[in-house]
Amino acid sequence: MKIRQLFDYDTWTYTYLVWDEETKEAAVIDSVIEQVDRDMQHIEELGLKVKYLLETHIHADHITGAGPLRKRTGAEIVVHKNSGSACADVLAIEGDKFTLGNQEISVLHTPGHTNNDITYLIDGAAFTGDTLLVRDCGRTDFQLGSNEEMYNSLTEKLFKLPAETMVFPAHDYKGFTQSTIGEEQEYNVRAGSGKSFEDFSTIMDNLNLPNPKRLDISVPGNLKCGNISDDSAA
Amino acid sequence: MKIRQLFDYDTWTYTYLVWDEETKEAAVIDSVIEQVDRDMQHIEELGLKVKYLLETHIHADHITGAGPLRKRTGAEIVVHKNSGSACADVLAIEGDKFTLGNQEISVLHTPGHTNNDITYLIDGAAFTGDTLLVRDCGRTDFQLGSNEEMYNSLTEKLFKLPAETMVFPAHDYKGFTQSTIGEEQEYNVRAGSGKSFEDFSTIMDNLNLPNPKRLDISVPGNLKCGNISDDSAA
Repeated sequence: MKIRQLFDYDTWTYTYLVWDEETKEAAVIDSVIEQVDRDMQHIEELGLKVKYLLETHIHADHITGAGPLRKRTGAEIVVHKNSGSACADVLAIEGDKFTLGNQEISVLHTPGHTNNDITYLIDGAAFTGDTLLVRDCGRTDFQLGSNEEMYNSLTEKLFKLPAETMVFPAHDYKGFTQSTIGEEQEYNVRAGSGKSFEDFSTIMDNLNLPNPKRLDISVPGNLKCGNISDDSAA
Repeated sequence: MKIRQLFDYDTWTYTYLVWDEETKEAAVIDSVIEQVDRDMQHIEELGLKVKYLLETHIHADHITGAGPLRKRTGAEIVVHKNSGSACADVLAIEGDKFTLGNQEISVLHTPGHTNNDITYLIDGAAFTGDTLLVRDCGRTDFQLGSNEEMYNSLTEKLFKLPAETMVFPAHDYKGFTQSTIGEEQEYNVRAGSGKSFEDFSTIMDNLNLPNPKRLDISVPGNLKCGNISDDSAA
């Protein structure tokens, strides 16, 4: 599996192109609406046949490019069932599998940041969305987030993956681009090194973060798959 | 060889940690002085023994963290001989080789952005500094830059590497993180697809770029290896 990481400077978002080298069947994970032309340029130059537009969750800090990319590639949009999305082609649940040529993508439900977070597992790599970030994790204080679910997703699901699993997050705010499960088991400052749920919860309850600037337009925009000029949700 | 890419948001600079997995011997390529603590945290958590601090050139847009990192790791600073650096431990020239455990780093002199650009070749990856950028190349209008040398470095040296060679640049301004030589041979907008020197030179002569904001402090700071509080160059 080939992986190409892309960065949106305005929202600190990582988008990923993943593809099967032999067949060029591809997925785009967590696109950003302002970067659709850039992403399409790369898709065309690399000769990729985009089959899936995978969302790790309904984002609150940027609007997805999935809708516009679907129009341009014919690919299917995948979002977790809990999102209640009316525009996605596939409402995924834990254990669902998708194929890209000779490669398989598995869905792990890792809620906590929202109720609809998916980690996509592909060939030894975990695309962890806003659940597991490098040395960090997503906030839990809106969008049906939950300290209990986040702690469970981190310690009972993600930290149980093989230590060498590569971790590719949806954001980073310090300039880290990737990690491994082994590193996060040990060095994640919120839930690593066997930190208790009580300690984790105390950290999360005291973050005092402002709401994302784009919250009010991002969530409704993403529930329309980024088709923000359409009247319908389709 | 393991590679970890890091990003400095203020100067759009990519720093790289590269290491031999077995021995943990490591190099840091193009560090940024403001990120030394972050880089050291990662170095310590990953258990890396930093042997070399590799500079791709004397930067004009940020100050290197090499001096501070040398103090904290004991590693040797490597800069091209043409830089005239009085603080580096090694003044490298084309063909020089360095070892990290079982891995070898080779020096390719790829001038054009400056007169002292190095591309470091490591295990199928090219760290191309400001010479080859994704779909782009570094400017040639100061620091002894040269259209002739840049064109030669791109077309006669870098584009002659195996097509599958991974390209890791020192900067990107659109959110690209890497490329391959094959892609750049074909899609580099300045020198790809067999573009002539005349066409290349016309593009370069009409970029009309402002001087980097930090030019006046970066070049002298980097000629002191980032030891900006020292009186001496050492």
